[in-house]
Amino acid sequence: MCQNCNDPTHVPDVADRSRRNLILAGAGLAAAPFLAAPATAADAQQPSPAPTPTGPFETRAYGAASKTSPVRPLSIKRRAVGPNDVLIDVHYCGICHSDIHQVRDEWYGIMTTQWPSVPGHEMTGVVRAVGANVTRFQVGNTCGVGCMVNSCGECANCKAGLEQHCLTPSKQVFTYNSPDPVLGGHTYGGWSEQIVVPEKFVLKVPRTVDQAAFAPLLCAGVTTFSPIRRWDIEAGTKVGVVGLGGLGHIAVKLAVSRGAEVTVFTTTPAKISEAKRLGAADAVLSTDAAAMQRLAGQLDILLVTIPQSYSVNPYLGVLRVAGTLVNIGNMMNLDDVNGAMLVFGRKNIGSSLIGGLAETQQTIDYCAARNIKPEIELIRPDQINEAMDRVKDKSVRYRFVIDLRAGRA
Amino acid sequence: MCQNCNDPTHVPDVADRSRRNLILAGAGLAAAPFLAAPATAADAQQPSPAPTPTGPFETRAYGAASKTSPVRPLSIKRRAVGPNDVLIDVHYCGICHSDIHQVRDEWYGIMTTQWPSVPGHEMTGVVRAVGANVTRFQVGNTCGVGCMVNSCGECANCKAGLEQHCLTPSKQVFTYNSPDPVLGGHTYGGWSEQIVVPEKFVLKVPRTVDQAAFAPLLCAGVTTFSPIRRWDIEAGTKVGVVGLGGLGHIAVKLAVSRGAEVTVFTTTPAKISEAKRLGAADAVLSTDAAAMQRLAGQLDILLVTIPQSYSVNPYLGVLRVAGTLVNIGNMMNLDDVNGAMLVFGRKNIGSSLIGGLAETQQTIDYCAARNIKPEIELIRPDQINEAMDRVKDKSVRYRFVIDLRAGRA
Repeated sequence: MCQNCNDPTHVPDVADRSRRNLILAGAGLAAAPFLAAPATAADAQQPSPAPTPTGPFETRAYGAASKTSPVRPLSIKRRAVGPNDVLIDVHYCGICHSDIHQVRDEWYGIMTTQWPSVPGHEMTGVVRAVGANVTRFQVGNTCGVGCMVNSCGECANCKAGLEQHCLTPSKQVFTYNSPDPVLGGHTYGGWSEQIVVPEKFVLKVPRTVDQAAFAPLLCAGVTTFSPIRRWDIEAGTKVGVVGLGGLGHIAVKLAVSRGAEVTVFTTTPAKISEAKRLGAADAVLSTDAAAMQRLAGQLDILLVTIPQSYSVNPYLGVLRVAGTLVNIGNMMNLDDVNGAMLVFGRKNIGSSLIGGLAETQQTIDYCAARNIKPEIELIRPDQINEAMDRVKDKSVRYRFVIDLRAGRA
Repeated sequence: MCQNCNDPTHVPDVADRSRRNLILAGAGLAAAPFLAAPATAADAQQPSPAPTPTGPFETRAYGAASKTSPVRPLSIKRRAVGPNDVLIDVHYCGICHSDIHQVRDEWYGIMTTQWPSVPGHEMTGVVRAVGANVTRFQVGNTCGVGCMVNSCGECANCKAGLEQHCLTPSKQVFTYNSPDPVLGGHTYGGWSEQIVVPEKFVLKVPRTVDQAAFAPLLCAGVTTFSPIRRWDIEAGTKVGVVGLGGLGHIAVKLAVSRGAEVTVFTTTPAKISEAKRLGAADAVLSTDAAAMQRLAGQLDILLVTIPQSYSVNPYLGVLRVAGTLVNIGNMMNLDDVNGAMLVFGRKNIGSSLIGGLAETQQTIDYCAARNIKPEIELIRPDQINEAMDRVKDKSVRYRFVIDLRAGRA
């Protein structure tokens, strides 16, 4: 079996291995011709890609030129593969509601969008090339990239596996819309055919899993699994999941897999039965005053996945004394946060932001071991604009994933 | 020494003891003539009070007839002393900002004020009579009453010592403005000369402490000590105390006593030096942008004692990653709660409401053992209206305490 790609069907080409070693012995920048045999059967059906250029290179991406322009194909520059870098052929990338907020510049004053904006932070793909110092990946490995592509690595939070909370903002690089420390300008996300990422920020994705469906685990998955672990959601915990979208539906699956008793709150009547199909014990319309009253004081914890401002008080009402509402989807204001509702119930508002690298890997491994995967609609790049509209009107079930290879000429 | 009052100077009158026993053997309602010798030297100088009536009785109180009327002397009805009750001569009662919110009906829609409104939930006094089943108190004992005068006693929270979060609202009785389960109408608080309270809700106050200064421990003290204990504030913890008023100044003293490093946030320049005198390591004006920037990300926990709506974001900014802002003073809306501020720092908003009975007793005992006491301005009842104005304009240092005995004819 090939030790590069761990694919039992792949017999390694000794000449390929020799070429790779030659490149890895090179002088730092491992920009190189195309290195490895295709990693999957699907890859094998693709036309052979052009060689990787020997310096910064262009790749096809999908982004917007302004907050009102549609997402269109663009050519963006990627840096040459450095000694610690991995060059990845992006096969799949999810459409997260955050992508839409970013590309429509809806995070006013918090994260101003840089143009052109190429979102995308839920990638799976295949390693195309590796730098000289890379040890965890080999060409042909299946892999993933999430919301971060660098951090200082030295602060207390980075050392504690909380790279998402790196204490050196100048060295923290998010996958898109961050200052690009190598090329200048700003970073471009995974709605693109290739990306260059430091090895440390590349996650292992088992070859055996559904690569398209696993892409959303890199953001939606870890974003919900992290609070599930941090607040010890387990057998017997009464969990509310608010919002049954990209985050919410995987939150339900993950919480159910831990043995929790899950109640879903939705504004979409059709999602009541869907929630139960996904394993929820109960599901109610959050607009149903009688149902909300029935649940008053019942839940231990709420995972609120609403991606925009919402009124907090009605949800505080369904928490038990000392319960916690975890805000994980909304970066805007929390409305109607009443002090009396909080103190009379000794209630708490917690929050969570994606997860660190180790936690992200744990999410992938946990789901792979239990055959848990997001439910997705696979689309072509030319369907992105329509898909964004459908995310906003809540008709997606439950995550759009772009097949980047379907955009190739 | 008298076993009733534990006063080493008091030689018991055998005839008094006999009368007491006779009354305790009575049929349930232990309404009785005045029973015991004065409990303190101060008491001894008062004119001998009238005998306790044998049924519900009138006592002098101070309250308002409407949200715009001044606080004036009133006559209110107290119930006869039941078998589990303690009749207390209230000597001292604090003026909490909550009292002012209540008497001015400022908790719109949350706790509508019932008229007439007699506030007061920080009492110390002396036991005047006890019911047949009372075992923890004897006539003449010094004691205190806080914000609660009953709860169901049977729910999980009551059993866990969280009587303030009793799960049977119909049986939870706050000291004022709650439905009165015995007399009907609503309860009247401690701005009154006498009160009848179930034994369980009466706290022991050592005779050796400053009875007037200890009164605010019954609300302000436990309200700040409870979160200090729950969030493990101890040596090395970097604590911010927001607001240096009745709650804030005792929070500083308590946190300092635990070895914490305290930073005070105030809007009153004169309180900067005051904060340091109270033991704070640092104190800043919350309106000083440079100071707030200097403290960005520095604090582990904030105890926010602001008694009304406030903008949350500036305070989230001074918390470290995963830090917690504890809302303990405000029952109105929390303004400007930004989701991005929360999630990017994995920050939390906690809350706390007074404390249970055991926790209140611990607060008193902790302070008595360490000679920690609130700083007060002692006033006569005819100064209440002026004092309420001074609480609102923040000129009180730091708690007004009413000497109820100064109102007697």
